[in-house]
This record gives sequence, structure tokens and C-alpha cells, in this order.
Amino acid sequence: MRLARIAHADGVSFAALQSPTTAGGEPGAGDVCAEIAEHPFGDPTFTGRTWPLADVRTLAPILPTKVVCIGKNYAAHVDEMGGEAPPAPLIFMKPSTSVIGPGLPILLPPDSQRVDFEGELAIVIGMPCRDVPEARARDVVLGYTVANDVTARDLQQSDGQWTRAKGYDSFCPLGPWIETTVNPDDLAIRTELDGEVRQDSRTHLLLHPIDELIAYISRVMTLLPGDVILTGTPAGVGPMTAGQQVSVTVEGIGTLTNPVQAR
Amino acid sequence: MRLARIAHADGVSFAALQSPTTAGGEPGAGDVCAEIAEHPFGDPTFTGRTWPLADVRTLAPILPTKVVCIGKNYAAHVDEMGGEAPPAPLIFMKPSTSVIGPGLPILLPPDSQRVDFEGELAIVIGMPCRDVPEARARDVVLGYTVANDVTARDLQQSDGQWTRAKGYDSFCPLGPWIETTVNPDDLAIRTELDGEVRQDSRTHLLLHPIDELIAYISRVMTLLPGDVILTGTPAGVGPMTAGQQVSVTVEGIGTLTNPVQAR
Repeated sequence: MRLARIAHADGVSFAALQSPTTAGGEPGAGDVCAEIAEHPFGDPTFTGRTWPLADVRTLAPILPTKVVCIGKNYAAHVDEMGGEAPPAPLIFMKPSTSVIGPGLPILLPPDSQRVDFEGELAIVIGMPCRDVPEARARDVVLGYTVANDVTARDLQQSDGQWTRAKGYDSFCPLGPWIETTVNPDDLAIRTELDGEVRQDSRTHLLLHPIDELIAYISRVMTLLPGDVILTGTPAGVGPMTAGQQVSVTVEGIGTLTNPVQAR
Repeated sequence: MRLARIAHADGVSFAALQSPTTAGGEPGAGDVCAEIAEHPFGDPTFTGRTWPLADVRTLAPILPTKVVCIGKNYAAHVDEMGGEAPPAPLIFMKPSTSVIGPGLPILLPPDSQRVDFEGELAIVIGMPCRDVPEARARDVVLGYTVANDVTARDLQQSDGQWTRAKGYDSFCPLGPWIETTVNPDDLAIRTELDGEVRQDSRTHLLLHPIDELIAYISRVMTLLPGDVILTGTPAGVGPMTAGQQVSVTVEGIGTLTNPVQAR
């Protein structure tokens, strides 16, 4: 199932995307959004209201209480950044206020001279959990979405701690929806800047894979429904400038596209 | 006004503490909690229900959407840790799931061999804000409370990023209440471990003072009502062991006490 958060004529709702003509493929003109009552966790209830996908705007598919991120989790990215791959997952956080949806602008802050894209596969948690064993990690997952771990590279280097460099408003695009049935273990992940491929990898290259990440993070902190884990970015990161457009695609999930603007 | 969040016989409420006999001093046996309708932001409405303070339990006074912290913000603490004082505020975050209230145990995780107390003055934000000028910083403050920035010192050093070391469940005691009228610029701050004074300083020694912190952080991220800023810890940090009790006192606000337990 594809779970979206949509803005329609009557407000904002969670919805399931129904693609009668293109099941599993790219969304088409015939797609329909079926409204979900309240929230998409557990067994969602449908209200019966529907809208054509073309008539709504897709928002960030979830508003997480926290966004936990993993650094240096693809070997080729570790190489391009210099330094060593960490023996255990390296965790940091982005503030929930950094989340934006598809189509909204990534705003370049005046404090930074270099803001990079970092395309990533994101895990969306489906239930409150703590100390999750690796063998049961998939049980706590609602689904997967696409993320861009936008990073002010100069501030990341000068600050040491990464919170400011990765925490500006608009620095966490998420979407376009949550795919609940995809197997995330070996998906193509690709980032394009103005249509030019810049990152092109596969999720089987994650140094610390999904089950390990969920076990490791939930050993530290309780995860809540809607919390998001950004699994790390592959090689090919690079700067964006105002007027450009960045798209991150994860196979079987979708494409997250955002324009870039000066703030 | 002293704003508390209390558990009483009928549930959980925000409340104002009314101390007829000891205004401005330590809470006494005659203190009364006057229930606030909904939330304490803006101009709170009172329901008319009251409870004696002795009959309720004080909880963490707010459940923040984010906890933003400042590292190395007292010169004597910078000295004891080694290294240099950062030229600008050094920001990091604790997950909201790390927050606990007064009296609840700080849980020592098996992953760490050394968990330290760090007593701090905390700012509680009162309204959504961004790009707040220093001159208007006090306008966005709801009040001040007391915090303990509990830190797994060994993991802080080995990880480099501080999120895990400072992010375990129970690693952010807050309370006992929010004081809305105190002037925070020169308050005594003191941490006691089993009654022995370990940290003893004053808030006028903050390298980056309150107005600068609010301006600096809100230049990065939108702050929301209830968000908490931990302003940094003075010298004297040290380890806690199971069975001990740690108390942080900020003059004019109150004392935050938590026992320490193995997890």
C-alpha cells in the first residue's frame, strides 16, 4: 500500500493511493487517493471519500516526533568524505521542523556557502518500540519513503557536531509517500540534480543494514509511530545552488523532487 | 507564576502553583495547584479545580517537540573537558523520548561504563518563532526550568557525534516546574550528588548568554511552544552510580531530584 498525506479542497488527510492501471508502477493520471480516518498506523479505516491524485497536493507523508539519521553508511561515500567507516552505526538527529514535503523549496541559509544533497532511503516506524531484536525489526516498520538529508557541508566541518549543518528548516524533504509492501534490502537509489545523475547505488550496500539500525537505535531511545530513520547516503554528494531542482528516486517507492531557493 | 504538569486523581493537567504562605520561596505544605485549561501558553484559563501540592505528583513540566542543547558554554567546564571554547554556540539535540520528570529514575544503560550528571538552566519557548533578534529574545520565552543533561561520557568520546551518548531514554530530567517571572541572568546553579555539592556556579558565567542562544538557534530552526533549550553545564561534572540521587537547583526556580538506577 502507498500511504500519502494530502492537501485537498476540504483540508488535510492521510490517504492510500490506488493505481488501478499502473499497480506498483509510477503514479498515473487515473490514480485515486482513498481517505484514511485519523492516522495510518495499525489497520487503517477508510472513510469512503476519494480524490483523483491530480486534484490533491502530496505533503510530507508523516510528521515525525523525531528524525534519526545514520552517517557514513555506504563505503563509497565514506571514501569520498575521507576517514574511516564507523564500526557501529553513527547516529545523529535532524529537528522535526526541518521536514518538508515534495515540491516545496529547499531554502539555502545565508550562513552557509555550500549546501549538499544527500539522497537516502528512509524507514518509517509503525509502533512504539524499544530494544527491538534484529530478528523482529521488520515488525515495527510501517513502510519506507525517500529522503534528502540536506547538509550545509561547510558548517558540518566547522561545527564538529552536525546538528546545525543538518537542522535548518527545509533540510529534510520526505516523500512522496510511504510504501508499506516493498522489500527494502536491494533497491536502486539515485539522485539527480537538474536531470543529471549524481548518486547511483543500491541499498544492499548499506554498511549497517536496516534491521541492525532499528535494533541499535531502539536500544538507545524509544521509537514512536511516525518516527523516521534516514539510513545514510551513497557516494556522489555535491552542492546545490538556487534555481536548481533535486530529485531522489528509490526503486519501488517513488521520486522526491524539490526546487532549491535562496532563503 | 510557577507552571507545573501534575498527575492527580482524575488524570494529568497543567497547573499554576499558588503558594500563599511562601510566595517566591520553596514550596510549602500549604501550596495549591490551580488547574489550567488545555495548555499554559498565551494567557492561561483556570478551570477552578485545585489540589493541594502534597496530593499530586509533578511530571516533566512540558513535553517538548525538541530539546536543543548547548555544549561548552561555561569557561570552567571547557577547561575541565579540555579543548577550546567554541566561538559560536555549539548546538546538539536530545530526543524528546529522553525527557523524564522529577523523582523518576535516571536509567544507566548497559552500553556505558560512565554516565555523568550535568546540571543546567533550561529555557522553555512560549510561541512559534524564527529569526528572533537578540533584543526580542525574551518575548518568545514562556519561562525557565531546571534540567540535567545526562551524558554517557565514554560513548560521547568514542562516537564523536553526541546523539547516542546524550539520547538514552531518561537522560533528560526536566522540572520541577516552569518559573515564568524569574530573571535568569545571574542565578546560582548547583548540583548535588547524594547531598554533596559537585557543581556550584552562576548563570552570568554563560559564555553565550540566553538572548544570543535564542537568536542563534532560531536562525537555524523554527522553535515551537514548549521547545526546550538547555543552556550548558558549569564545571564539576562527574559520574553517577546506581543507588545514588542527583539534585540540580537553580536559584529562584527550584530543585530537580532524580534517583539513579541500573537499566
